[in-house]
Amino acid sequence: MPYIPLEEHLPGITGLLEYRKDTAAPIRELTQILLRGPSTLTEGERELIATIVSHRNACVFCTTAHTAAANVFLGEESTAELVKHDLHAAPVSPKMKALLAIAAQVQKGGKYVTPEAILEAKENDATDIEIHDTVLIAALFCLYNRYVDGLSTVTPSDPAFYKTLGERLKNNGYNRLPQGYDHLKSTV
Amino acid sequence: MPYIPLEEHLPGITGLLEYRKDTAAPIRELTQILLRGPSTLTEGERELIATIVSHRNACVFCTTAHTAAANVFLGEESTAELVKHDLHAAPVSPKMKALLAIAAQVQKGGKYVTPEAILEAKENDATDIEIHDTVLIAALFCLYNRYVDGLSTVTPSDPAFYKTLGERLKNNGYNRLPQGYDHLKSTV
Repeated sequence: MPYIPLEEHLPGITGLLEYRKDTAAPIRELTQILLRGPSTLTEGERELIATIVSHRNACVFCTTAHTAAANVFLGEESTAELVKHDLHAAPVSPKMKALLAIAAQVQKGGKYVTPEAILEAKENDATDIEIHDTVLIAALFCLYNRYVDGLSTVTPSDPAFYKTLGERLKNNGYNRLPQGYDHLKSTV
Repeated sequence: MPYIPLEEHLPGITGLLEYRKDTAAPIRELTQILLRGPSTLTEGERELIATIVSHRNACVFCTTAHTAAANVFLGEESTAELVKHDLHAAPVSPKMKALLAIAAQVQKGGKYVTPEAILEAKENDATDIEIHDTVLIAALFCLYNRYVDGLSTVTPSDPAFYKTLGERLKNNGYNRLPQGYDHLKSTV
């Protein structure tokens, strides 16, 4: 039962984004830019960052939703499972493993990000912007996870809900696309 | 020394907001709406929410900046100090004390927000939107604190820097004001 009145048919983040649309607009836009905008990280890789952070914040709604989105982009389900439960064994590139380790540090707090983790990423050819985006995506999901659980939103238990949501996050992205990003429409 | 190349004369969040302007725009806009937009919470009260969360995340740049902004709005320095170090003794309303307690729970994680804390806020006449905004402001500063410290940005030690920044946050707000919020210009 949510702590504030949200539309019953809109669980998790979806009801919150309808509850206050003026704050939802920039949240949607930031997410769209970071997770679907031009990047040398694939959409699937960026969804894995959202997944590992949400999982470590124990936000079931966000974890299940972004696991589903990652699975749709990657075309399989084992990578996201391993990223959550055994990052070392996950079949991702060394660069991506280093970036996911940074994301996991950000989840704990900004000061937990170590020079060694940054060096590991750079030695595996992570660029400055990839490191920047990893930290900001991880920080953004620390916002989302707290927003969703801090207001005690409803978490559906039906796997079909998240499968549909994952498809929608691939096909439609996060935004009612803002001006200036119309060029993204064809790529999401 | 930041983990990515940022302009040396722009410490803390300021260099990050210049580093990637397309992601900065919605972050600025969200902050402007939440901290300076129409609300039944004063700007000073909202800066106290930013302050308590940043303090508990041990983000020195954000804590010092938002303490300075709160002090400018409140016209004194003792309230922000007590909010950080002895919330129970802080000279704020019972409603505000309950909202700041919720913000402190959000800082730990979304699942830490208790029904009892929500009830305490409601019994002290907090509205649903005030509770919503408190949770979202607290979540937003969990993003900011991780962004600022996760990329190891520079934290100035000169108190004059933050005094000037606090004044600027009162006089100019957080945004190059987006379309539709021009009416705020005269109130910030």
